[in-house]
Amino acid sequence: MSTVDDHRSPRDPLSWLAERAEHRRAAGLRRRLVPRPADSPLIDLAGNDYLGLTRHPEVTAAAIAAIREWGAGSTGSRLVTGTTELHAELEAELAGHAGTESALVFSSGYLANLGVLTALAGRGDLIVSDSLNHASLIDAARLSRARIAITPHSDVDAVAAELANRSEERALVVVESLFSVDGDTAPLRALHTACRAHGAVLVVDEAHGFGVAGPGGRGAVFEAGLAGEPDVVVAATLSKALASQGGAVLGSAELTAHLVDAARSMIFDTGLAPASAGAALAALRLIRRDPGLPELVRKRSWELYELALELGLPATAPSGAVLSVVLGEPAAAVAAAAYCLERGVRVGCFRPPSVPDGLSRLRMTSRADLSDMEVDHIRAVLSELAKKQP
Amino acid sequence: MSTVDDHRSPRDPLSWLAERAEHRRAAGLRRRLVPRPADSPLIDLAGNDYLGLTRHPEVTAAAIAAIREWGAGSTGSRLVTGTTELHAELEAELAGHAGTESALVFSSGYLANLGVLTALAGRGDLIVSDSLNHASLIDAARLSRARIAITPHSDVDAVAAELANRSEERALVVVESLFSVDGDTAPLRALHTACRAHGAVLVVDEAHGFGVAGPGGRGAVFEAGLAGEPDVVVAATLSKALASQGGAVLGSAELTAHLVDAARSMIFDTGLAPASAGAALAALRLIRRDPGLPELVRKRSWELYELALELGLPATAPSGAVLSVVLGEPAAAVAAAAYCLERGVRVGCFRPPSVPDGLSRLRMTSRADLSDMEVDHIRAVLSELAKKQP
Repeated sequence: MSTVDDHRSPRDPLSWLAERAEHRRAAGLRRRLVPRPADSPLIDLAGNDYLGLTRHPEVTAAAIAAIREWGAGSTGSRLVTGTTELHAELEAELAGHAGTESALVFSSGYLANLGVLTALAGRGDLIVSDSLNHASLIDAARLSRARIAITPHSDVDAVAAELANRSEERALVVVESLFSVDGDTAPLRALHTACRAHGAVLVVDEAHGFGVAGPGGRGAVFEAGLAGEPDVVVAATLSKALASQGGAVLGSAELTAHLVDAARSMIFDTGLAPASAGAALAALRLIRRDPGLPELVRKRSWELYELALELGLPATAPSGAVLSVVLGEPAAAVAAAAYCLERGVRVGCFRPPSVPDGLSRLRMTSRADLSDMEVDHIRAVLSELAKKQP
Repeated sequence: MSTVDDHRSPRDPLSWLAERAEHRRAAGLRRRLVPRPADSPLIDLAGNDYLGLTRHPEVTAAAIAAIREWGAGSTGSRLVTGTTELHAELEAELAGHAGTESALVFSSGYLANLGVLTALAGRGDLIVSDSLNHASLIDAARLSRARIAITPHSDVDAVAAELANRSEERALVVVESLFSVDGDTAPLRALHTACRAHGAVLVVDEAHGFGVAGPGGRGAVFEAGLAGEPDVVVAATLSKALASQGGAVLGSAELTAHLVDAARSMIFDTGLAPASAGAALAALRLIRRDPGLPELVRKRSWELYELALELGLPATAPSGAVLSVVLGEPAAAVAAAAYCLERGVRVGCFRPPSVPDGLSRLRMTSRADLSDMEVDHIRAVLSELAKKQP
């Protein structure tokens, strides 16, 4: 046995980490956490606080009130002590906003996606997954053990063909409503027609749509007239437009009751902290009181898009708050992001594995609270950046 | 195609949910969320607020201060805008407490476990997993695509045999330090010896140990003299002893840097909310200031255990805050939990799939802040319960 063990580096079985790190460094794919200060003069086009509500006085006051009333933690899993009356109130209002019968809150959007796919699909089922779906949906599909068919991005015919040719009785079609990197919208009505024709469930991740798309931010599913359909399931996040943390699944009461019985990522996870539940609820109420707020962010992102085009930068057309400027190799994207940062504008920089090889990019997100002065400064920086592109 | 579609219930592809719900109801396995009020006269033996810190004035004040300084949400993924200086401070102090070089915070313990196992193991590797491991570790192992060998609970010889007989070069041995249902401790030193002999990494989930076990709550890994060993990786949660929400992975700086590059459940998830980071940091500081606090909860759980034995209830010996009273069928456990609840004591009720068939049980957790009067009342209720058992 000792001979076998010798080549297994008994002293440091993690010695491969150093080699892996060196490969990543050479490929320009090393990542580093850069802690940000509380007060920054930077203009933020990288975060997901789309409606600019995370520091809104009503949102922070609600988070503080929740801590005073309920404490800092939820103290247990949702099924034991981790469901407070505040969670129930938030769920009722989320469902009301989305136009569904029921909602179930998870401690993150990632866990909501794991929960819904693993509870609705398993061995012997089919998941048809869009090629640009978010990592959490990909991991959720893998974890479900269903057969996975990946279809070209937003290709409804390919989805219909997978559904028509399947041998499985049960199938889910899984998409994002607004895709997280390019910011484009899924063809929801056509996908739903295909699902209905072939007896499949349409699962839509509204992480970037809820609170941003549709009338009053009720989401792209609502806008497509699909809210409340028995064969449509919506996932959403509380950490973007709702300025907080957590995720939710929205659908029929029968669906959320099933998740309570079967969604391991909820059953075996501590409930969302009261502060985050309170903040999300306050943000939701602000959106419902001022349905013009989601329009503001869409207007601002469209301005950024037109500006990029005007400057000759290859931007993607935004349906919500997100747009991309595709620059190719990781080094080009890293350099461009650093250039913007030095000039006071923080943009996202997406490299593999977040995006496919050769499609490294700047990812910009707009906010409802961007001022005209800030947009002027962004214009100046992007203009200089454009001149430096090959 | 229409013939095929007919039996696929094109109108309601989720109609199977009703049937599934009925089966669960018949088996006594239906679950229901019961929102709790903010002020409850119940004595809580069900939650995981082991040190009683979730409403501690310093913890809630720190959570509130974090909201005032940073806002309600972290605004993005850890690699974009979701890492604040507060996150970095928390990570440094977590590592200091655990005796490791570095720490990385996730938005939940579930996601920390997904992150560490999927980043350290993949196809062609082996994960040796204890039969009583938590659902998040089971899901993490599945998601990693490594070969999984499940070994009998705390059976070191079986672990060593799996490691010795493997064909894979890389292997992880995965256990909880204090198991979440029975509350017993893993044989960490013996497991580490086996890992060291066979060139494997020992991954220990300290969800129930961190802040509870070891000197000053530094954890069972520290107590076993394994803190900082290069072949030991620790996962912890911020939602139990630390009174908040979130999870962490603790180990070498090389390890956490690798997770930053490779842990999808961190890269593609919104950063922990500032309030939760602030609360966990304050709780940690309280524990470090008063190293006697973790001893208090261990003393209380031992009292509960001795009381149960005295009354003839089949209790498991607690290493930390958790003990179980195994009652058999789901209906017996549900009835016993309801009996306690009516008499003012909330206990957990664990049924399949949380525990194996035939081992449904009450799960009780003690708290450092249980008063003598509360323990007297618990004694009275358990005494009545014991008389009702067959």
